[in-house]
Amino acid sequence: MTPSLVLAIDAMGGDGAPEMVLEGIRIALERSPNLRFLIYGESALLASLAAWEAVKEHCQLCHSDQVVANDDKPSTALRKARHSSMRLAVDAVRDGSAQGVVSAGNTGALMAIAKFVLKTLPGIDRPAIATFHPTMRGESLMLDLGANVDCDANNLVQFAVMGEVFARTVLGLEKPTIGLLNVGSEDVKGHEAVREAAQFLRKATLPIHFHGFIEGDDIGAGTVDVVVTDGFTGNIALKTAEGITALYGTFLKEAFASSWGGKLGYLLAKSALGRLRERIDPRKYNGAMLLGLNGIVVKSHGGTDALGFASAVDVAADLAKNGFNNNIKAEFDQLFHDHSGKKLADI
Amino acid sequence: MTPSLVLAIDAMGGDGAPEMVLEGIRIALERSPNLRFLIYGESALLASLAAWEAVKEHCQLCHSDQVVANDDKPSTALRKARHSSMRLAVDAVRDGSAQGVVSAGNTGALMAIAKFVLKTLPGIDRPAIATFHPTMRGESLMLDLGANVDCDANNLVQFAVMGEVFARTVLGLEKPTIGLLNVGSEDVKGHEAVREAAQFLRKATLPIHFHGFIEGDDIGAGTVDVVVTDGFTGNIALKTAEGITALYGTFLKEAFASSWGGKLGYLLAKSALGRLRERIDPRKYNGAMLLGLNGIVVKSHGGTDALGFASAVDVAADLAKNGFNNNIKAEFDQLFHDHSGKKLADI
Repeated sequence: MTPSLVLAIDAMGGDGAPEMVLEGIRIALERSPNLRFLIYGESALLASLAAWEAVKEHCQLCHSDQVVANDDKPSTALRKARHSSMRLAVDAVRDGSAQGVVSAGNTGALMAIAKFVLKTLPGIDRPAIATFHPTMRGESLMLDLGANVDCDANNLVQFAVMGEVFARTVLGLEKPTIGLLNVGSEDVKGHEAVREAAQFLRKATLPIHFHGFIEGDDIGAGTVDVVVTDGFTGNIALKTAEGITALYGTFLKEAFASSWGGKLGYLLAKSALGRLRERIDPRKYNGAMLLGLNGIVVKSHGGTDALGFASAVDVAADLAKNGFNNNIKAEFDQLFHDHSGKKLADI
Repeated sequence: MTPSLVLAIDAMGGDGAPEMVLEGIRIALERSPNLRFLIYGESALLASLAAWEAVKEHCQLCHSDQVVANDDKPSTALRKARHSSMRLAVDAVRDGSAQGVVSAGNTGALMAIAKFVLKTLPGIDRPAIATFHPTMRGESLMLDLGANVDCDANNLVQFAVMGEVFARTVLGLEKPTIGLLNVGSEDVKGHEAVREAAQFLRKATLPIHFHGFIEGDDIGAGTVDVVVTDGFTGNIALKTAEGITALYGTFLKEAFASSWGGKLGYLLAKSALGRLRERIDPRKYNGAMLLGLNGIVVKSHGGTDALGFASAVDVAADLAKNGFNNNIKAEFDQLFHDHSGKKLADI
């Protein structure tokens, strides 16, 4: 039997917490019975929940009576809530008692706490938020999704290197392709930061297969394995995609309901359409990774259900199993060793 | 009989030009037989096409043997091609021989030529590209879509005022709502330009119903009537939406084809599904407007077909009929009269 992996869980974050969180852990345990959990939150409340019975053998309760609120500013969360469930769960990763942490709470607060407690990896100025999304070719990774609204060329280059290492070591792609999101594919397109970043990425000294600029429609097409962009654009592009998926779903329902042929056709095609629903189910893609930190941190969507939370747990377990952080550290060490401590973008 | 409207057409721009353009005019004439066209391009070639026969009674050929190429830089197109079909068609609007111009050619070149020839309206520093998109509630207007990759707060405020006037005078909405695209709805979210622009737009002195910040998923939801953003984000958001629509369409086809039930269900629901296809048909939304110029300029997608080009012609005719430019001029005059020549953002 392989030694079990321990994950720290902030049980108090998310709209459906803490029930949704415990139920999510139950689902994750069905898939990976070897996982163990440190559960941070109001221990009396947690122990009183029906879902607790199903998971308690695999979990250890760690009491906290402070909760980071959704409208807390990151600075407030960092200063005030030193004993919050979110903070204590991140501390567990720093202390080595857990190999990763999952929270469905306030994203800004989680990023601020994780940066403060875990620090960034050597060579990384700012962590980035990354997630998978469905494409014509399967799945792609996209970063940053909102951690950094203003990015310079150096940040974008670091995101590209992190994304490449991720795609290679966690997804197992041999030569992942990296694209920089822009308003056109020609060299002259876009603002200074993307143009400069592209220049750096084209240099042969970086061990990266840089595809070049990509446009918004390349996200769905799956033109590249890793989509790199600043947090402002990435957040808006991803949420636009979510909104269009919802719109299309509504239009589809209305079309089926618009005639008897539509209604009957829907009944016949129902199970085939289940395949479509599954492929675009946002819960399947739940679990955004905070990359570039000395520790594995996964943010679940606050509005998700237990199935979505279980996906976020899967993501954290995957990252820990694949030793992503050690791999990225080694890559960056190599880069800096080769180029004697220069800034990545100056290489 | 109402006096006929004259539109100048760059017949040489777009992948399928010039046949696609003439065929598009034929379709537009079916809907609005009162339209007249000045057709700019290689006259011998145009007159030799089969499509010419169907439209020639409503058209006048204006010869040009220069064409702006798709890879011409805007500056090159402006300097070199003074007698290009695109340039002559825009000149026709300045000279008053046409009330609007439509081109499916190089967007950057069209914007540069239109700015140079027509100049911006008083009070507008930079024109913006605007288009409609489908939403849960019907349609919304979105701008800028790529004319300005870097925007300051003042530009965003001007886009908001232009969008508001458009929604009120062309779409006939009594109190259109305006939203500023951002990564969250709270005041502290986003970069400086959006935060500053929001502060200006909240001031009661502007005759605008400012909803506040919106997020990417609000685009499909139709939360506001007018979505305001910089050209970098707007271009990427719109193309992301196009890519996701294509992805969803492919997944849907694959789901129907995956089983006998799916195939049979598709046959029964086929006509009902036509309704869905129609609602999201990108050709229906073809025709991006270059707003803020002393003249009506509409850009058709370069890859569209005749049906799409006809939509772009419809858009130009609509703008001309509704006197959009006079309305926007009057609104800005009023604003500047009330505030004695201050910059809009300083009001």
